[in-house]
Amino acid sequence: MSVLSNRALSAAAAFAPVQDFFFSSRYGERRGDPAICDFTFGNPHEFPLTGLVEAIREHAVPQDQNWYAYKTSEPEPRAFLAQSLSEELGLGFEPDDIALTAGAFGAIALAFGLLLNPGDEVVIPRPGWFCYAPMLRLGNMVPVEAALSPDRFDIDLAALDAAIGPRTRMVVVNSPHNPTGRIYSEVELKAVADLLELASTRIGHRIFLLSDEPYRRIRFDHRPFVSPAEIYPWTLIDYSYGKVLLAPGQRIGYLALSPLMPDKDRQTLRDALFTTQMALGWTFPNAVMQYAIADLEGLTVDVDVLAKRRDRLSGVLEASGYDLLPPEGTFYLFARAPGGDGDALFHALADRDVFVMPGRIMNTPDHFRICLTANDEMIERSLPALREVGMGLG
Amino acid sequence: MSVLSNRALSAAAAFAPVQDFFFSSRYGERRGDPAICDFTFGNPHEFPLTGLVEAIREHAVPQDQNWYAYKTSEPEPRAFLAQSLSEELGLGFEPDDIALTAGAFGAIALAFGLLLNPGDEVVIPRPGWFCYAPMLRLGNMVPVEAALSPDRFDIDLAALDAAIGPRTRMVVVNSPHNPTGRIYSEVELKAVADLLELASTRIGHRIFLLSDEPYRRIRFDHRPFVSPAEIYPWTLIDYSYGKVLLAPGQRIGYLALSPLMPDKDRQTLRDALFTTQMALGWTFPNAVMQYAIADLEGLTVDVDVLAKRRDRLSGVLEASGYDLLPPEGTFYLFARAPGGDGDALFHALADRDVFVMPGRIMNTPDHFRICLTANDEMIERSLPALREVGMGLG
Repeated sequence: MSVLSNRALSAAAAFAPVQDFFFSSRYGERRGDPAICDFTFGNPHEFPLTGLVEAIREHAVPQDQNWYAYKTSEPEPRAFLAQSLSEELGLGFEPDDIALTAGAFGAIALAFGLLLNPGDEVVIPRPGWFCYAPMLRLGNMVPVEAALSPDRFDIDLAALDAAIGPRTRMVVVNSPHNPTGRIYSEVELKAVADLLELASTRIGHRIFLLSDEPYRRIRFDHRPFVSPAEIYPWTLIDYSYGKVLLAPGQRIGYLALSPLMPDKDRQTLRDALFTTQMALGWTFPNAVMQYAIADLEGLTVDVDVLAKRRDRLSGVLEASGYDLLPPEGTFYLFARAPGGDGDALFHALADRDVFVMPGRIMNTPDHFRICLTANDEMIERSLPALREVGMGLG
Repeated sequence: MSVLSNRALSAAAAFAPVQDFFFSSRYGERRGDPAICDFTFGNPHEFPLTGLVEAIREHAVPQDQNWYAYKTSEPEPRAFLAQSLSEELGLGFEPDDIALTAGAFGAIALAFGLLLNPGDEVVIPRPGWFCYAPMLRLGNMVPVEAALSPDRFDIDLAALDAAIGPRTRMVVVNSPHNPTGRIYSEVELKAVADLLELASTRIGHRIFLLSDEPYRRIRFDHRPFVSPAEIYPWTLIDYSYGKVLLAPGQRIGYLALSPLMPDKDRQTLRDALFTTQMALGWTFPNAVMQYAIADLEGLTVDVDVLAKRRDRLSGVLEASGYDLLPPEGTFYLFARAPGGDGDALFHALADRDVFVMPGRIMNTPDHFRICLTANDEMIERSLPALREVGMGLG
């Protein structure tokens, strides 16, 4: 018998495909090698934004004796975020609706801790981010996948409804969506809200919606964004600055309660934010990152550059036998492997020093994911391999 | 019915005395007021160490494109800590034994996640740190208090043994001990190890020891320190730089596995560190803090200054009717209230603008805690009140 807890074992089992890919696969062997084109994870391949570096250095200089004292969700960043998020989404957030967290991961863990008991079910999208399931398993909760529509990766209302049962406590909506790059329209989200309202009545308790929005500002072609928090009152938003700054190594983000939530529930959640976050392991962001947040708010990677990379890659892929839906946002391009075997494609590309993420890791084995945070040089260098493999496998 | 999870409610109930004290008590009303003498929490009342500020500013400057990429437990700080901890404790730590965490809180949460299932019991000391219980409750685990000996706050072996039952999975040892300042001797720790060995056999599974050592380097009068990791093989150490740097707002610490642990168990835990920490909410420290760790290792608050404050306060308290055991380490001085009512003492001192932590919060209502991180001016200013109240209540 293992000394590990069952929940740690269960989390490890849910994460095993990613862990094996990262540490033990052909990618694991070549990771960090400058000779490869690395399109796997959303990591930077260029120097960080100057403004980020300046903000950290400036706010490291102490202004008072409490500069490095214990920080919770501090009043100034809370007030700042309540105002900026209210302007961005057209909602009336108040400071008490905002919990500062060490990135979106911390905000998701906080939402899970606030709302979920062992045995509770959470509906997550397929394909989708590969950390929802292990995070849930570590809390003895149960992830239930709802497949997105196979053609355009819309939210499939019938699949979502079928995934909801008596133990469902939460549904995760991720828009802009990793890995497909889809941004859901107001019409789609209203249909989801109607469905959750009916389903909550049917199962006899309220289903919450976790709106996972770390890519909210990474949108192409001036596409609009609507948050589920504007539509479904029982929505919690998780956000991270790690994507828009392309700096996931400095952990800063937040959980925000929809101001549309009925007062009683909203106040109950507000009152529990601090204690839950303390009990999760004091998951508040570092002092310096909290001081820096107003300076970081205006910074972003160049989304037009990402759009140009998307266009460059999309053009070559479409001309070479790949089926793809050009992303509307996010860092990712999600395409079907010619021949329908994402693993075969991974290996054929790896033979040519090009590394993508096989769709199997997101339970969609005929697809693969390309990350647009690769630099332009890598992209140009990869094109012959992408063309050759597409033609060969198609 | 509350929308909150039962576990969040249970954590909040366990933390309510602290939360009420911090936010709603007479202390909550006066917190931050420069007119008060604040001896409550271990926060700084002087400007931070220059070396800390310099280290953060220096290591914020990117040296490569991956500077702010996702960070896990990075190889360089792991190797550095394995070596420095090996030298400090005389044990053979390897880099894989070290998990970098966002402070000791994160390390404790990691140990709980690795080893504990819902319903498992963990023995914690009374008096003791007030966050063990809510952290356990959030995971549906059960804290069981074992009283320390009433006179000298030694580990009471009979009480410890009586607290261990069939569901016990872990025992927490905190040395130097918050709030009493006791440092346990090698002889005491050997007796604890023998007890845990026997108890593990008796209940039919291994009991792990969590050695909570954030005050390991805050020791007075050249007192030696022995870690339980040197004695009991199934020991995990949690450590934080937040105490020795007096900078709890910048989160950096670690969990370390005892090198004495049998290979199979040690390897099982090593292999689970990364996934468990990811699933807890990516609880790795910020990139900059990981780069800074070698610079931080040599820094410390002036422990001689803390010892002088201890002596100054101890002298006045002992002359004024308080019973106390002068601390051997930590930031704290734990004394019995003259008359035996810690709450009455709190109010009598609060009437005089002096704020201490009532012992009730640590389940020892006849005592109170004074934090030595107050500055010298505060200490001098508080002495008349401490004298007056001691004489009056005694």
